[in-house]
Amino acid sequence: MDDRFENSVGIVETKRMRVVEEDSPLVLRCGKELGPIDVAYETYGKLSEKKDNAVLICHALTGDAHVAGYHKENDRKPGWWEDMVGPGKAIDTNKYFVICSNVLGSCYGTTGPVETNPKTGEPYGLDFPIVTIADMVEVQKLLLDKLGIKELLAVIGGSMGGMQVLQWTVTYPEMIKSAVVAASTTKLGAQAIAFDAVGRHAILADGNFAGGRYHGKDTPDNGLAIARMIGHITYLSEESMRHKFGRELRENSEYSYDFDSEFSVETYLDYQGQRFVERFDANSYLYITKAMDYFDLAQEYGTLQKGFANANCRFMVVSFTSDWLFTAQQSEEIVNSLAAGGKDVSYCNIYSPYGHDAFLLEPITLGAILSGFIGSTYRPLSERTGEPEENETRSALPKGVKPGDHARRARVDYELISSMIDEGSKVLDVGAGDGELLTRLIADKGVRGEGMELNQDMVVHCINRGLSVVHRDIERGLSYLPTDTFDYAILSKTVQTLDNPDKVIRELLRVAKKVIVSFPNFGHWRCRAGLMFRGRAPRNKQLPFRWYSSPNKHFLTLKDFDEFCREQDIQVEKKIPLKLASRRPARFWSNILAQQAVYLTSKYENPAG
Amino acid sequence: MDDRFENSVGIVETKRMRVVEEDSPLVLRCGKELGPIDVAYETYGKLSEKKDNAVLICHALTGDAHVAGYHKENDRKPGWWEDMVGPGKAIDTNKYFVICSNVLGSCYGTTGPVETNPKTGEPYGLDFPIVTIADMVEVQKLLLDKLGIKELLAVIGGSMGGMQVLQWTVTYPEMIKSAVVAASTTKLGAQAIAFDAVGRHAILADGNFAGGRYHGKDTPDNGLAIARMIGHITYLSEESMRHKFGRELRENSEYSYDFDSEFSVETYLDYQGQRFVERFDANSYLYITKAMDYFDLAQEYGTLQKGFANANCRFMVVSFTSDWLFTAQQSEEIVNSLAAGGKDVSYCNIYSPYGHDAFLLEPITLGAILSGFIGSTYRPLSERTGEPEENETRSALPKGVKPGDHARRARVDYELISSMIDEGSKVLDVGAGDGELLTRLIADKGVRGEGMELNQDMVVHCINRGLSVVHRDIERGLSYLPTDTFDYAILSKTVQTLDNPDKVIRELLRVAKKVIVSFPNFGHWRCRAGLMFRGRAPRNKQLPFRWYSSPNKHFLTLKDFDEFCREQDIQVEKKIPLKLASRRPARFWSNILAQQAVYLTSKYENPAG
Repeated sequence: MDDRFENSVGIVETKRMRVVEEDSPLVLRCGKELGPIDVAYETYGKLSEKKDNAVLICHALTGDAHVAGYHKENDRKPGWWEDMVGPGKAIDTNKYFVICSNVLGSCYGTTGPVETNPKTGEPYGLDFPIVTIADMVEVQKLLLDKLGIKELLAVIGGSMGGMQVLQWTVTYPEMIKSAVVAASTTKLGAQAIAFDAVGRHAILADGNFAGGRYHGKDTPDNGLAIARMIGHITYLSEESMRHKFGRELRENSEYSYDFDSEFSVETYLDYQGQRFVERFDANSYLYITKAMDYFDLAQEYGTLQKGFANANCRFMVVSFTSDWLFTAQQSEEIVNSLAAGGKDVSYCNIYSPYGHDAFLLEPITLGAILSGFIGSTYRPLSERTGEPEENETRSALPKGVKPGDHARRARVDYELISSMIDEGSKVLDVGAGDGELLTRLIADKGVRGEGMELNQDMVVHCINRGLSVVHRDIERGLSYLPTDTFDYAILSKTVQTLDNPDKVIRELLRVAKKVIVSFPNFGHWRCRAGLMFRGRAPRNKQLPFRWYSSPNKHFLTLKDFDEFCREQDIQVEKKIPLKLASRRPARFWSNILAQQAVYLTSKYENPAG
Repeated sequence: MDDRFENSVGIVETKRMRVVEEDSPLVLRCGKELGPIDVAYETYGKLSEKKDNAVLICHALTGDAHVAGYHKENDRKPGWWEDMVGPGKAIDTNKYFVICSNVLGSCYGTTGPVETNPKTGEPYGLDFPIVTIADMVEVQKLLLDKLGIKELLAVIGGSMGGMQVLQWTVTYPEMIKSAVVAASTTKLGAQAIAFDAVGRHAILADGNFAGGRYHGKDTPDNGLAIARMIGHITYLSEESMRHKFGRELRENSEYSYDFDSEFSVETYLDYQGQRFVERFDANSYLYITKAMDYFDLAQEYGTLQKGFANANCRFMVVSFTSDWLFTAQQSEEIVNSLAAGGKDVSYCNIYSPYGHDAFLLEPITLGAILSGFIGSTYRPLSERTGEPEENETRSALPKGVKPGDHARRARVDYELISSMIDEGSKVLDVGAGDGELLTRLIADKGVRGEGMELNQDMVVHCINRGLSVVHRDIERGLSYLPTDTFDYAILSKTVQTLDNPDKVIRELLRVAKKVIVSFPNFGHWRCRAGLMFRGRAPRNKQLPFRWYSSPNKHFLTLKDFDEFCREQDIQVEKKIPLKLASRRPARFWSNILAQQAVYLTSKYENPAG
């Protein structure tokens, strides 16, 4: 056996299953019937006795069922997600039963325009009916039925695979425990449709296309290559193209002064186009890009939120910072709709220079997220004994930050904050850090907790320990969330670092019934005396920074905050000024003696209510 | 006469001039010879007696010489920059003599591949030599020679027009007084080359292309249309496409479930492609995109800065926020190179949702910049009597800000700052606002002043009053500037609003010999007493904000700043604590009595030096 087989599923085989018979065809979304339908698929790992460990992977536009391993001993390349799928990997085939099937309309074994039309004995060509993402999912569901799988621990997909995942959560919500949507969207925007349309134009305009009846003749390679080149540009980021190719010339040091390809980026695209026409069918390209253009999850249901109404799985949404095909903004729309509907959603916008292709090129960060997310779905946090999961070690904290650092800093707060929160309530922790506070509240108080955090590594760490957390800057607002979504929002030692603390507090008081705010008291006597007698901006254990390097953008005292609450019509339900040395509340002269304060605030009830 | 002719140059005519004879051909950059060369051009306005008011406009990829006015009374559309060029407009034909010529290689009257090759009697086709931006400029120069123009008040161009402008400043620096480069770059990046290359592929792959010999036969319309569609996507922003088309269907409310164009964005691109093939030549498209791909100003000279070494005109660089074809970053590279070489450069990154096309679609802001910039080049600030120029009224200040507001606020500072500055020195004003301080320093002290400002409207205002100003966030650093570029840098009442004041001050002390810093003194007795006795964060005339809405991110006292200077090895040459009521320096207890302070700082000289 080859070395490279060691951490791999090894030699695997693409199987084929008839899921629709010719005499009982499937009615597609376009209204036409299709049958027979065969599905090409691969599986790795073992289905558990409880049948609760099945993971479905959905592939992208030009992908196939061959996710991992090798078809033959001497295969040069493994499956397309070998980095992510295998024994001990993020999608761990020692634990999970992994399934991937080729999509309807493709040319890799599942029925598509390249297949023989039983009515004519010829390849379908353009007689193949238009298929949609929903049709693709329908065919996957029929395959799972045949395999006897009634529950999916996770459905996972990137790009068009993510569209299938989203469709799954809407069409078969009862079957799914978790969903991972990476670099995807609920609908293409005008620019993405435009790129697809131009690619299809190039194929349709190719002299060899012959209305799709090119089988056995010269194929429309020029058109398909041009379509692929356009697509390829959209899969990379401008930054990655710049770094990879720049203005480098492929062979010469001088311009050739003709129209041959000479820049490296030109010859690269030529090569990509050439390789693609050797492996892909032009008609399939038309059909699958059209399916993507047509995908619009909200359209069918009026709004996205209504579409997701019945979904009750955990959601993990992932975007990549430099992806300009399916942007972070589009992922955030998914997250916002889910959160607005009270769904369990986590989100991470992974920093990557690799553009849309990043979902295939960021195995470390994406792997840490996937392993943590699937692992904690398989074995939820609330059921754990406190032992960390094996896969938790994957997570990377920022340099110099040890797990628990945030917690140690927050510990003094913790007892007070915890004491203000009712058992079993729903809590939003803003600036969740490494998730220690939330984890303890879940353990001690049985709360349903969600985090919000700005630092990517912290987000990954939270997800890895099984928490639901959204990667977001609180200052961007929470307008997508309905009023009183949470019982409590916690803003622990964060208010003074915000650009607009007043807006944030008002927003939190809208989405949560009560807001717990803690901050260092700038009115403490040491600060006063320092300024009064030494004429210096405050610096101490609680305010350890120099004036020019402080992350604190605002200084406030207890009195300032009291007045703020009065002016903003905020009710102070509890106010605990804290002396840190004794770890006790300051009973007298609190604005002088307390280094820190914890407030429990709420909106004033409407007197008529 | 039509109403629309009122503010227009009216009926104009494209003229044609032979600039190169067949028997003395022009040697192109590619080494080949070309002759004869005819140039199509238009002129508007009147050349002054001094011949000092000629403005050359350079057009973009598919443009022509017809910038403004109408060719016939019943013309439906005027020239391509009618918004900008005409009597009383930004490029004022009452004042200036405007020239625009069609570029070499195009198909609108200047010699290109569509013309007859005198050697064969057939159209050139692909026998036309490869042309470069430098060749285009060479031909423009020959035209100006014929017209007897030896000096250009301004050379102006957007996109590929901007490339010609840049080339002009490098090839004929002695002829140019000012240069406006909008939405352009000194070199295409890999992504832009890739889009051009795919477009050329589509033309070359078209069955009708016939090696460029399609004249008199079916033309390669499919290929050219696809190339145009790709180009068109890159000219719009994702945002503008989303707003203009979204996912709207052109005719039906339901999907048609076939491969016809049905989304509005598809039919729009079809239309654009169709219109384009009616007006443009496929070979010309190949040649001109290749010229753009080849353009690389730095390559010829080693570095951009060396390329610009002999340029001694005023530069105005303009980019547009949503332009992703030639990005703001690419414009900033031009600005940085020019500034590093000590050139007179202004820059504005205009907010626009319109993408690359914004240089044609933002006439108000761009017009204000052009009129102010050209006007003040024609009649420099230093030569004015103090009367505002007529065109200065064009400039828009932010709502609620009147010209002079900034100045009134800065007035108290002004006397002190002015007293610290030597006559005729070179000054950088960071946070230049509406430019009042700089204008006064120029008038009173004869300084050579440059501004840096974050607010677009303020930048436009500064340019409009004849100042050189760069639109930039000082926090992004000045690493492109050599050490001691300026005699003085002024940081007036800005230090406390910066995220990283220490970095900014260090950076300013590198690029300027001396740095003048003014800030509100948080150690003033009212602040002290307020915190000491009332337990409140400071609020007064100098610090008028509430704790939560203050733009001040840092509080510092005179003592804090003294210590900062000591720690950072900064020499305090002068320190003037200021009592605002008396507008006098505080001689005693300055950290208690001064509301404000002005420091003159410098690096410690190397003792060995």
